[in-house]
Amino acid sequence: MESDIIEKMGVIVEDLLTDYRQGRTIDKMDAFNQPNKDIIIQLMEELQRIVFLGYYKNKEYKIYTVRNHLTMLIEDVMFNLKKQITIVLKYNDEFADWEIEKIREKAEEITLEFLRRLPKIRAYMETDLQAAYDGDPAAFNKDEIIFSYPGFYAILVNRLAHELHLLGVPLIPRIMTEHAHSLTGIDIHPGATIGKYFFIDHGTGIVIGETTVIGEHVKVYQGVTLGALSTRGGQELKNKKRHPTIQDNVTIYSGSSILGGETVIGENAVIGSNTFITKSVNAGARVTIKNQELQFRYDKTLQMESLDQEEAGLSIIY
Amino acid sequence: MESDIIEKMGVIVEDLLTDYRQGRTIDKMDAFNQPNKDIIIQLMEELQRIVFLGYYKNKEYKIYTVRNHLTMLIEDVMFNLKKQITIVLKYNDEFADWEIEKIREKAEEITLEFLRRLPKIRAYMETDLQAAYDGDPAAFNKDEIIFSYPGFYAILVNRLAHELHLLGVPLIPRIMTEHAHSLTGIDIHPGATIGKYFFIDHGTGIVIGETTVIGEHVKVYQGVTLGALSTRGGQELKNKKRHPTIQDNVTIYSGSSILGGETVIGENAVIGSNTFITKSVNAGARVTIKNQELQFRYDKTLQMESLDQEEAGLSIIY
Amino acid sequence: MESDIIEKMGVIVEDLLTDYRQGRTIDKMDAFNQPNKDIIIQLMEELQRIVFLGYYKNKEYKIYTVRNHLTMLIEDVMFNLKKQITIVLKYNDEFADWEIEKIREKAEEITLEFLRRLPKIRAYMETDLQAAYDGDPAAFNKDEIIFSYPGFYAILVNRLAHELHLLGVPLIPRIMTEHAHSLTGIDIHPGATIGKYFFIDHGTGIVIGETTVIGEHVKVYQGVTLGALSTRGGQELKNKKRHPTIQDNVTIYSGSSILGGETVIGENAVIGSNTFITKSVNAGARVTIKNQELQFRYDKTLQMESLDQEEAGLSIIY
Repeated sequence: MESDIIEKMGVIVEDLLTDYRQGRTIDKMDAFNQPNKDIIIQLMEELQRIVFLGYYKNKEYKIYTVRNHLTMLIEDVMFNLKKQITIVLKYNDEFADWEIEKIREKAEEITLEFLRRLPKIRAYMETDLQAAYDGDPAAFNKDEIIFSYPGFYAILVNRLAHELHLLGVPLIPRIMTEHAHSLTGIDIHPGATIGKYFFIDHGTGIVIGETTVIGEHVKVYQGVTLGALSTRGGQELKNKKRHPTIQDNVTIYSGSSILGGETVIGENAVIGSNTFITKSVNAGARVTIKNQELQFRYDKTLQMESLDQEEAGLSIIY
Repeated sequence: MESDIIEKMGVIVEDLLTDYRQGRTIDKMDAFNQPNKDIIIQLMEELQRIVFLGYYKNKEYKIYTVRNHLTMLIEDVMFNLKKQITIVLKYNDEFADWEIEKIREKAEEITLEFLRRLPKIRAYMETDLQAAYDGDPAAFNKDEIIFSYPGFYAILVNRLAHELHLLGVPLIPRIMTEHAHSLTGIDIHPGATIGKYFFIDHGTGIVIGETTVIGEHVKVYQGVTLGALSTRGGQELKNKKRHPTIQDNVTIYSGSSILGGETVIGENAVIGSNTFITKSVNAGARVTIKNQELQFRYDKTLQMESLDQEEAGLSIIY
Repeated sequence: MESDIIEKMGVIVEDLLTDYRQGRTIDKMDAFNQPNKDIIIQLMEELQRIVFLGYYKNKEYKIYTVRNHLTMLIEDVMFNLKKQITIVLKYNDEFADWEIEKIREKAEEITLEFLRRLPKIRAYMETDLQAAYDGDPAAFNKDEIIFSYPGFYAILVNRLAHELHLLGVPLIPRIMTEHAHSLTGIDIHPGATIGKYFFIDHGTGIVIGETTVIGEHVKVYQGVTLGALSTRGGQELKNKKRHPTIQDNVTIYSGSSILGGETVIGENAVIGSNTFITKSVNAGARVTIKNQELQFRYDKTLQMESLDQEEAGLSIIY
């Protein structure tokens, strides 16, 4: 029996080895030159600690050693991020045929520049914290937001990944945002540009596409898609503006879809729940779906009723 | 080069240290007095094992040592939960200026009272298990529900967190429910009050707000929002009833939004998919959206067709 | 105090022990015969490494030891999966009264047969990779898809779990797919049958039911439900075809619901966003919701406007 099973497993191994040699894309990878997902996730945790130094302390952390603690974190990020960037830079056409030493220097330069931008990211996160507190009566206090709000975390990861994206780093930013997507259900592409005071409530199901541009003081609820009109062009559409522009002070309620690279939602507009919008909306507009016609049935009787609802998807308190 | 990079990192560290001193909210935290998310998640796992003793056994677990095993779990929860509650109680205005020794006593009292409520939570979970089995033909057996149903897990976490919430514990209940939200895509605020025999199917995208009240034998499908009409009032709306009341035996199909603190869905009502409801619905009503008007296009021809669909969003088997 | 608290905890323990003896379903489990979720998740990681050998390498992995590396992985899967299958087979009525030795042999047979199907799964995943690359202009390259696309991961897990499901293994396939659901927000039942070149974009909120059948070259976006019309029949509906059939080359845009076991979406059909479909759709049809009627309000003035939108939910580029 024992030898029988070993033989059978041997056949399975040989069949798989044969299968690996079919020249498939899934087998074409250079196994020694892949980014390490676990290390990238660890880097995100360290960056989170740098951005919110007080919140994510280590046991040994003491006020008088802030400098040492921070230095240790920065050195670790420097070492590991530079190494991961070195690995992925070759996927960027611009650096594809550079020599390894030059790529390493470039990776170091990018990592330093990225670290220099952390104070800017911190300034933005302070505004996002204020926006979340002002926007959500269920927020007990600001600590609760930093500790537990998935939207706040997704925004942090976008702000970190977006800077790496701007610096020309491939793969790593997307691994970061997809990790946040996995934890939060909020899918923000690293290419999306997001202004200050951004607030996401609940967040599950939100999709914000690669070429989206979002102004300041924008609020977005669960299930909102800021997407492309069609992806039928496939890879030919790469790098084209396919996703909408949302101007300052816009609120977008749950379940709305706003699609298209030329679609602009003007300042102060309010987009009601479940709307489907593929054309631009003027500044100041409050857009709602017309009241749904609902059917009410009681046992065998059927009546059409108007619920005389609030403007569908949008409550306006005058 | 080596000394060059150290110097550059040094500048980054100093710039960040300067940045930390700007008096921002994100830097104002008392780093030594924060709850520990990892410990809270570990506590949830231990509580899960206490509620379902047979399911989440340790290797060493033997029937004749149930008492020892349980005692160990209870002691661990007692020690760690009391410690975490001691840390967060100061965020509750009621205890903000209490002396630390009195806060510790209060934390012990709360922890004991919470543990005393576990048999009640177990009784509720038994009803939820039955509801899931009765409600889902895809459930292979009840073990499968306990092992793998995200809705069942989200309900357990709400029931645990809700008791802590009722006992006046801040922050910890929300950290618990947001952890469940992260794992399941189901966002139930610890403040929500949920009756027996509650069943959530699939669940991703569900939002159940802080002041929601749900009766017994209620079923809720993926993408349902039980939300507020408007959060424009921000923090001024805190503690007001902003979310709906769902009475006994109500079923709410996928993608529906029911909004507003005065909205009551009466007993035995059935709310069809994708409805948007901001006013109360009478007991026994079956509410559906009128058939969607759909357009069918074949190549260049366009025809309007009625699909003669089942009542949109709701199939009624008489 | 110390002895006081021990006494109080003792009362809590005794009350729980009494509670455990009430004969509830949640206490009826055979604690020594449960599958181990952690081991099943570890098995999935090993299977992922076998399917994409180059991507998920260990540090020690070297080209000339591929055979050793693979043998080690296969032996580990063989040992652990066989053990887990042995545990769960008794839940399958067919094997409920078999003797343990016969169950063990059956588990070995199933495990071997499952491993023999890995090359087939690899062939399918190669087609899914191509479909994702062709379908998404935001895909930087194919490595990015394997590393970070939640839809690609959910499909892999379905393909693995579906084979175990076909081989009559209970519980384990669902634990696998619910783990993927937790990580991705994509809920595909292991019973669902999915053809080659399947592409899921974004994915959060997707539900694909147990008896769904999907052809080749199908694309599905976030928030789509392929569901049952009604589950009111509960457990009596078990094993009936309750979910739709999607034929080749169909695209289903975000937020659509397609329901019912007799609903067939014909070849080449395109289903627009937010449609709600409970009847079959002919081959080649492009189905969209009629333009939503939207209300635009500026301050106190209200106007009805037609946005003259793209066909709602579907952009057609001729």
